This record gives sequence, C-alpha cells and structure tokens, in this order.
Amino acid sequence: MTDTVGDTTGTAVTALRDLDTSHVSDALDRLGIAGQCLGIMPLDRSFRLAGPAFTVRYVPVGTDPGSVGDYIDDLDPGTVVVLDNAGRMDATVWGDLLTATAARGGIGGTVIDGVCRDSDRALELGYPVYSRGRWMRTGKDRVRVDGYQVPVTAGGVRVEPGDLLLGDADGVVAVPASRADEVIAVAGQIRDAENRIRADVEQGSPLMTARAIAGYHTLQTRTRSAD
Amino acid sequence: MTDTVGDTTGTAVTALRDLDTSHVSDALDRLGIAGQCLGIMPLDRSFRLAGPAFTVRYVPVGTDPGSVGDYIDDLDPGTVVVLDNAGRMDATVWGDLLTATAARGGIGGTVIDGVCRDSDRALELGYPVYSRGRWMRTGKDRVRVDGYQVPVTAGGVRVEPGDLLLGDADGVVAVPASRADEVIAVAGQIRDAENRIRADVEQGSPLMTARAIAGYHTLQTRTRSAD
Amino acid sequence: MTDTVGDTTGTAVTALRDLDTSHVSDALDRLGIAGQCLGIMPLDRSFRLAGPAFTVRYVPVGTDPGSVGDYIDDLDPGTVVVLDNAGRMDATVWGDLLTATAARGGIGGTVIDGVCRDSDRALELGYPVYSRGRWMRTGKDRVRVDGYQVPVTAGGVRVEPGDLLLGDADGVVAVPASRADEVIAVAGQIRDAENRIRADVEQGSPLMTARAIAGYHTLQTRTRSAD
Repeated sequence: MTDTVGDTTGTAVTALRDLDTSHVSDALDRLGIAGQCLGIMPLDRSFRLAGPAFTVRYVPVGTDPGSVGDYIDDLDPGTVVVLDNAGRMDATVWGDLLTATAARGGIGGTVIDGVCRDSDRALELGYPVYSRGRWMRTGKDRVRVDGYQVPVTAGGVRVEPGDLLLGDADGVVAVPASRADEVIAVAGQIRDAENRIRADVEQGSPLMTARAIAGYHTLQTRTRSAD
Repeated sequence: MTDTVGDTTGTAVTALRDLDTSHVSDALDRLGIAGQCLGIMPLDRSFRLAGPAFTVRYVPVGTDPGSVGDYIDDLDPGTVVVLDNAGRMDATVWGDLLTATAARGGIGGTVIDGVCRDSDRALELGYPVYSRGRWMRTGKDRVRVDGYQVPVTAGGVRVEPGDLLLGDADGVVAVPASRADEVIAVAGQIRDAENRIRADVEQGSPLMTARAIAGYHTLQTRTRSAD
Repeated sequence: MTDTVGDTTGTAVTALRDLDTSHVSDALDRLGIAGQCLGIMPLDRSFRLAGPAFTVRYVPVGTDPGSVGDYIDDLDPGTVVVLDNAGRMDATVWGDLLTATAARGGIGGTVIDGVCRDSDRALELGYPVYSRGRWMRTGKDRVRVDGYQVPVTAGGVRVEPGDLLLGDADGVVAVPASRADEVIAVAGQIRDAENRIRADVEQGSPLMTARAIAGYHTLQTRTRSAD
C-alpha cells in the first residue's frame, strides 16, 4: 500500500482483500462482534471494497438547509466513505460528481445507509458503491451533514471512524479497528478450512466427511451470542 | 421524429433523450414540481425510455371479471404505456404478448406501478419495461381496467395522459406536459454545468473549486419545497 | 433422464423444462391450484430449475443450537432442495460448500424462503439458487433443522416432498405431484397458443385479432378462484 491510511491499517486492509465477507462474518460471530450490515448491497455483483471508514452522518434539514457535504477533496486514498442517511430511500447522498472525484482520487469505495444516484457512472468507472438502492432524487435541501468522523450506523451496525469495511457480492461487513488483527486471524483460519473442504468435495468426498476432517464446525463455534 | 406523437411533443422527447433522470429531477426540484417516481426501476440497467404517456388504471375485480385491456394495437409509435396497478406485487399487468406487440409497433416503453412477467422477452427484444419487480402470476381475473387516458399514480407521482416520461438506470421521472419546455431548459443548464465540473475534476481540479466556478449549487436551488 | 427421481417424475420434469413459469402459473390458475411462490427470485436471470422437492424446515434455535443440516450428501441427482427458513432475511441456510457439493452431485437447484450466501460460487458453477436475497451472515447457531421431508412453505405456497418445482427469470412455481400431469397438459396448451399468437403478431397481426383466433382468453379462464 502506498496510500496514507497508516501502516497498521494498510496491513490489515491487504489481509482483508484475501477474505470474503462470509469468512469475516463467521469470525465476527465466533468473537461475539456484531458487524454484518443488513440490506446494503453492491450496485454491481462484481464490486469489492476494503478500507478504513471515513464517516458522515446526515439528518433531515430544518429551517437551515445546511450542506450535503464538501469532504471528498480531503480524503486519503484507500479510504472508504460511510454515509449514514438513516436508511432513507427517497433522498440521495451520492452521485455522479462524487463518484468521478472519488475514482480519480483513489478512494476505496462508498457505503451508504440510503440510496445513490447516477449509478451508470459508478459502473463505468468501476467505483464500488454499496447502498440500499438507487434513485435520482437529490438529498440537497432534504438532508444535511450533521457530523463528520462521528460514530454512524450502517445496516444496523455501529461504524466508527477508522473501522475496517469489507464488501463483496454478498454485502458489507464492518470490523472494529481495535479487533481487526483478531478478526482477520480467525477469518483466515475459516477461509483455509473451507478451501480444504471444497477441494475435498470437488474430488468426490462427501461434504460431511470433508467437514469433519477439517474440524469446520468447531472453527465456527461462537464464544457468545452475536445477535 | 417521424412518429405521430405531435411536433411539440416530438421536440420535447428529442430533448429529453439527451438528459439523465438526475438532471430532470433537479430541474423539477428547482421548479417545485413533484415528478420522481419512487420504487419503479428498469428490468435492466441498460434500458432508457422517453415519450408521452398513455395511461391505464387498474382496480381489483369485483363480481365482473372485466378485461385486462385491449389497448395495445391502437397506440401511436413512441408512446410510453403507464399502467397504474396501485403498486400490487401479486398480479401482473404486462407480459410476453404485450411486449412482442409493443416492440413491433415501436412503442416507447412501459412504466408499471406494479409488476410484469416474461421479463426474458423484454430483455431479448430490448423493450424497456420499468416496474416494481417481476413475477409470473397474471392479473387476469384479479384486476381489470378501470379507465384509459385518466390521471394515474406511478411511484407516488400523478401522471396525466400526454405527460412526458424519462427513464434510465436510476428510475423514472414524469414531466407535466404543460411545464415540459421549462423543465427541459433548466435540466439542460444543470447537465451542462455538471459536464463542465466533471471535466474539471477529471483534469485534477478539487470538486469544491469546480463546483464554485460553475455556480452549481445556485443552479440546484429550489424555488419552493418539492416534497 | 438417467437420474433416480423415478420414471413418472422424470417424464414430468422433462415436460416442465419446455415450459415457462407463466405457462404453468396460468394452468395452476385455470385448475384452481395455488402454486406461485411470491418473492423468491433467481440469483441470476439466466437460471432455470426443474425437479422434485426435497424439503427442509428451519426454526430459530432455542437452548439447543441443533444442526443446520447434513442432508446434502444423500440426495438423488435432479432433486430440488426447498429450504423453509420462514422468510428470514438475517440468517443464511445455504452457502459455498453446499453449492459446491450440490453442483458436483447433479442436484437440480435450491429454493430458499430466506437468504443464501456466497452467491459468487453459485454463479461461477451455474448452480441455480432462488431466494429472497443474499447476505453473508450464517444461520448456524441462529436456526436449526426442525424436519426433513415435511410439508413446508415457500413464498406463501405449500410444498410437499416430491412436488415439482419450476423456476425461471420470473420466479418459481410449485406443482403438486398428484396434479402434475393435468397442470402440464394445460400449461402446454397455453404455451402453444401463445406461440401461435406471438408468431401472428410478429408478422403484423393486431394482438386482439391473434388472440381471438387462438381462443386465448378461454384457455386462461379459471374454474374457481386461486387467490
């Protein structure tokens, strides 16, 4: 990583890129951490993202229309923008010009608890946007920024600035920065066991046998409820 | 346009084809017109449509099963069929044979506040259908036509016969026929400003600077609430 | 069919492969059978499935975590796995290793009243999964198997072991095994009539004329309400 997200974070992000969200989800379960963002999906199945969060919280406008945000020029490459618009489906907080600026700046992707617009541009540039859907109506004069780099909610999960996001075709998981090494280590074990099991199955082994040999169920056992 | 939707309408439709729904949406906001259809999306992201509305309103059948409609043979080329099935997800009002007939007749597309079936045919023929989803269960004997060329609702928006519809990957907007010139003019200004800003950003300008030069926020300012 | 689902079933499955879900749905309507699964869609529009059901019912775990199932190694080729997780969106009952095992074993596909994970593997292997969506959080320690080969619910439809499932881009229909011949015969008539109508329309006939010649509306008339 030549970006500026920090060496420790950079190492963790590199490790995350070799994992799927299912591996990290199982590791979060095993460690008793809630981190699976519900209902926030990639605009395109081919998208993946990994990186530390820059967070923005939106609220409905009152008498002051406020601003929809002028943060994009100041972000470090590799950052993942996490926009908490409280799940609103009727007012976008991301569109064409933000996509173009983010893609040019090497931003890692955008995760929205809400909707985006100009989805064609994100696909054209291969810029990974995760959201509850897409629509064309702007959030301008409907919502305003209430805080930058504050704890936010994304798909029912608390995300703090610097927490690590991983997204693939099945959605997004958030990993608390303080637990990243632990989560990544467990997720790596789960991935390795699954790869062994799948190789066995592809060569004709019954799944039950392959799982038993790999001790798979034990790997997944949770230490406490993550619900 | 060699179609028969009328010269004035034809000119407006041609202009709409050069706009995105986000441009028109911002123009509607600025002019205080509600026209963004919520929850009605293209069957395929590649679809676009533009044209004047032919409207059909459906209601549940009572003791008389009524008809699901025999209007398709009578429409002018370029017309957009707008079917108001009150958002019902469990009874289709569009399918294979209507798609085949519409595609052959040069109909501009179909917008459904409800669901369609035989989505494969629409994709095969490149016929743009916008809907709340797809399912295979017919509306026959479940819903019937209550009126043709009456005001209808599509995604929360009132659509009158002859109003102009524009659809792209982000959804559908409806423009009142009586305000079309005004909306198109403002939308064109917004598109041009966005194109200038994006060009600046692609050449390395900060977004905030590019926006300020183009006077972008002023262009988007609404004259009154459109919510 | 060289599989072991039985000769009678095998013949019916072969016939189903030549039908679309819309044909079967109309036949179910005409015969007064409820069989259209609402809200369960293919992970990919290109997927199709046809085959007899092997059913599994899930319930939330109590004090006993139970098992998420070890059935996959025992299924006959051609079987369609039907998993009733009560529409839960927050706990998967199908993923990577089940997909790999099922694809290798020639299983016909999976229908889930709930969600799946590792959707990329299903796409990579062309293994047809139908579900309410996708997410990465496991059902392990959240739900457990309550019964195999019991009557289950899928998208509001009762499915018994051995009932026949047909899936295409528009969703899934279930045909009671005891009525399969009847349903397939009627669906075949509807398909043939639609093909004649579409051929006429493609050669310039008005749809209303083509429908009248084929006696289409009569074919669709129901014997009693299927709602």
